[in-house]
Amino acid sequence: MELQTAKGTKDFPPEEKIIRNQVVDTLKTNFEKYGFAPLETPILERFETLSAKYAGGSEILKETFKLKDQGDRTLGLRFDLTVPLARFVGMNPNLKLPFKRYEIGRVFRDGPIKLGRMRQFWQCDADVVGTKSMVADAEILSLAYDVFKQLKLNVVIKVNNRKLLNGILTEAGIDRYKDDIILIIDKLEKIGEKGVRKELEDLGLNNEQIKNLLKLLKQKDLKKLKINDEEGQQGLKELQELFSYLKSKVEFDPSLARGLAYYTGTVFEVFLKKGEIKSALAGGGRWDNMIGSYLGTNKEYPAVGIAFGLEPITETIKSKQEIKTNTKVYLIPIQTQKQTFKIAEEFRKAGINTDLDITGRGISKNLNYANALGIPFVAFVGPDELKKKKLKLKDMKSGKEEFLTKEQIIKKIKN
Amino acid sequence: MELQTAKGTKDFPPEEKIIRNQVVDTLKTNFEKYGFAPLETPILERFETLSAKYAGGSEILKETFKLKDQGDRTLGLRFDLTVPLARFVGMNPNLKLPFKRYEIGRVFRDGPIKLGRMRQFWQCDADVVGTKSMVADAEILSLAYDVFKQLKLNVVIKVNNRKLLNGILTEAGIDRYKDDIILIIDKLEKIGEKGVRKELEDLGLNNEQIKNLLKLLKQKDLKKLKINDEEGQQGLKELQELFSYLKSKVEFDPSLARGLAYYTGTVFEVFLKKGEIKSALAGGGRWDNMIGSYLGTNKEYPAVGIAFGLEPITETIKSKQEIKTNTKVYLIPIQTQKQTFKIAEEFRKAGINTDLDITGRGISKNLNYANALGIPFVAFVGPDELKKKKLKLKDMKSGKEEFLTKEQIIKKIKN
Repeated sequence: MELQTAKGTKDFPPEEKIIRNQVVDTLKTNFEKYGFAPLETPILERFETLSAKYAGGSEILKETFKLKDQGDRTLGLRFDLTVPLARFVGMNPNLKLPFKRYEIGRVFRDGPIKLGRMRQFWQCDADVVGTKSMVADAEILSLAYDVFKQLKLNVVIKVNNRKLLNGILTEAGIDRYKDDIILIIDKLEKIGEKGVRKELEDLGLNNEQIKNLLKLLKQKDLKKLKINDEEGQQGLKELQELFSYLKSKVEFDPSLARGLAYYTGTVFEVFLKKGEIKSALAGGGRWDNMIGSYLGTNKEYPAVGIAFGLEPITETIKSKQEIKTNTKVYLIPIQTQKQTFKIAEEFRKAGINTDLDITGRGISKNLNYANALGIPFVAFVGPDELKKKKLKLKDMKSGKEEFLTKEQIIKKIKN
Repeated sequence: MELQTAKGTKDFPPEEKIIRNQVVDTLKTNFEKYGFAPLETPILERFETLSAKYAGGSEILKETFKLKDQGDRTLGLRFDLTVPLARFVGMNPNLKLPFKRYEIGRVFRDGPIKLGRMRQFWQCDADVVGTKSMVADAEILSLAYDVFKQLKLNVVIKVNNRKLLNGILTEAGIDRYKDDIILIIDKLEKIGEKGVRKELEDLGLNNEQIKNLLKLLKQKDLKKLKINDEEGQQGLKELQELFSYLKSKVEFDPSLARGLAYYTGTVFEVFLKKGEIKSALAGGGRWDNMIGSYLGTNKEYPAVGIAFGLEPITETIKSKQEIKTNTKVYLIPIQTQKQTFKIAEEFRKAGINTDLDITGRGISKNLNYANALGIPFVAFVGPDELKKKKLKLKDMKSGKEEFLTKEQIIKKIKN
C-alpha cells in the first residue's frame, strides 16, 4: 500500500496546527466578546438540503461531494456554513431574533486543485439574523477590526454597498447586464483598469458609459460622491450611517463588488496592507433575502455576516512567527525517573506545559530531541540536584545554565 | 422541501455547544500540559488507507461512508483518529520519537442508530508513539485523572493489563478461545456473573475452569494475585510499576477487558461513580503492534493512548449545570444607539462579553430577550444615565437594580 492523503487534502503537523489553533482561539474569543453564540451543524447533510433552490447554486453544486448511507439516502458534505444556518433557522421557528451565531468548521468542495485551494478547508463565520439595522453591520466590521489588531496583522478593511454600486451603474448610464458588470468590476484589482475596460467593451458598453463608470468607481471620498438614483442614494445613506460608527477603522471603496449574487447591501473585504498574500483574509456583507427565499416563506430574515479564511490568515502568520511547540520545559531524569515524574506533576499543577524523558536515553540524545521540538527550557534531574533541592535549568536558545529551585523555575518560565 | 438533518446527525444549539466547547478546552489545556502536540488529519481519506489490513477490521469497514471524487478516486470518511495517526507516522519517517500527539475531531460511522449513537461524533485522542516505558502509561492515566477532576466529575478509573488477563486465563486452565472469552468477560458489568457463566458454559468451559476464572477476576488486590504463567507475571510486573506512579488515582480491576483486539498491555476505562450514564467516559490502553503491522514494517512503533468521549462527558455535565450563554451583559439603549455602541466597545475592551439591542424595540421586549438567552446582567443606557455618568444595572437573577459607573459595572461583572 502506498501511503498518501486524498487529493486536495493534507495533514497539519503540530507546528502548523498550533498557529491554526491560535487563530481559532482569537476568533472564538472575539466572537463571544461581541455576543455571538456557538452553533454546531453536521458535516453530513441531506443532499436535498444542499441542492435546494437559493442554496449554493449550480456552480457550487457541481463541486458538492455526494454519497449514500446504508438506507440508500442521498447525502452530501456541506460546502459552506450558510446553508446549514438557513436550515437551522427554518427548523427552529421559536428562535429568539436577532440570532447571533458563529460556527467554525470544515467545509468540502470537490473542485480543481489550484494553488492553495484545498478540497476541505475551514470556514469561520459569524452572522446576525433578524435585523436590518446598520448597527449590526457596524458590529461585524468592528469585530473584524479587533480580530486583526489582536492577530497583529496590518490590514485594510474595504467597504462598499451593493445598492450604491447599482446606483453607480445607473448613474453611468448602464441599465443592462448589471450582474455581469459587477463581476467584471470585482476583477479591477486583479486585471487592472485596462483589463476591465476591455471586458466592458466586449460586453457592448460604449466609451462614455465606461468613462463615467470608472470615474465614479475611483471616487473614494464618500462625501464627494453624487448619486441621483434612488437605490444608490439608499446605499449611500446606509454607508454614511455605517461610517458614523466606525470612522477610520474602515475604508470606502466603490469598486469593491464581492462576486456572490446574494449580497443586498453592505459588502466588505479585508486585505493585508503589504505582503505576499493578495487574496482576502476575510469578507462578508448583508444578505437580506437568502434565508427567506431558501425557506420559501414570506417572513423576512435579513442577515449580515463575516467569514474569516483560516488558511490565508494562518499562511500570513506562519511567515512571521515560528512557534513549534506549546511545551515550555523538558525534564531529563538522570536515574531519577520516579522523582522526575513527581516534579513534572508539580510543574503542571503550577500551569506549566511540561514534558519529560520516558525512554531513559542519554543526555545528548535528549537535548537533540528538545531542540528539534523547539522546547525553550530543559531541566536536569540528577541525584545531586535532588539532594541540593535545585535543578539545573538550561535556556535552549542562549545555552545559559542556572541552578534554581523548583519555585524559581516556575516563576522564570511563567514570565 | 421538508427541513431536517440527515439521519444519525443533529445540530448542537448554543446552550449545548457551549458545554461541548468547555469540555474540549479542558481537554486541550490538559493535553498540552502533558506535552502533547496538536495534529490535524483530514476527514476525507483514500478508501485504501481506511480499508488496509490491520486498520479498523471488517466490522468497522461495513460502517465506513464511501464516496468518489470528480477524478473517480474512491474515498472514505475516517471512522477513527487512530488509522490517520498510523498513516501520518508512516508518511513522516523523520518524526522525532516519542511522538506525543492529540487530535480532536469528528469521525463517521454508517451504523444502526441506537440510543445515543450518532453517525458522526467527536473523538478526543491523545497517544504516545515510540516507547514501551510504563511511565508513558502512567502519564496518560494521570492526565485522565486531572481532566475529570477539573471537570468536577466524580469518576473511577479502572485499570487492567491484557498480558495479566491472558495469564489469568491460563491460570484457570483455559487454553482455547481466549479472544472470545475476553469478549465475554468484558460484558461482566452488563450481563452479570450469571450471564457470563452461561456464555462460558455455552463455549464449552467446564465448571472447574469457570469457578477458577471468576475467583481470579474478583481479586481486586494486586498484591494478593498469584500468577505462575510467564505472560501473566509480565503483566503483573507492568501493573505494579504503573501503580507505583499513580497510587490511589486508579483502581485495579482484573475483569476489565476492553473489547478491541489490538490492545497488548495496559487497558483502562473511566466510569462515573454514580449517575445515569453507565457507559465509559474515556478509555484506552497500550497497542504496541498495530502501527508496525499497518505499515508492514519491521520497525516497532509501540504506543499507548486514551480516547475521551465528548458525547457522554457532555451529557453528564449537561444534567448538572445550565449555562445558556457566554454573554455577560446586555445593553438596552433608550434613544442612545450611538453612545451605547461606544459603551459596548469599552466593555468589550475590558474583556467582558457584551451584547446590545440593535433593533430599537421596547424595554420589556428587550428584557424578555435577555431573559430567554440567559444573560445574567442588563444595563439601561438612557439620556439621564449618560448625564449622570451612571448606568442602571439589573441583575436578571435577583431582579436587583443599581446605579453604577461603567468602571463599577466592569468590576462587578468580572467578579
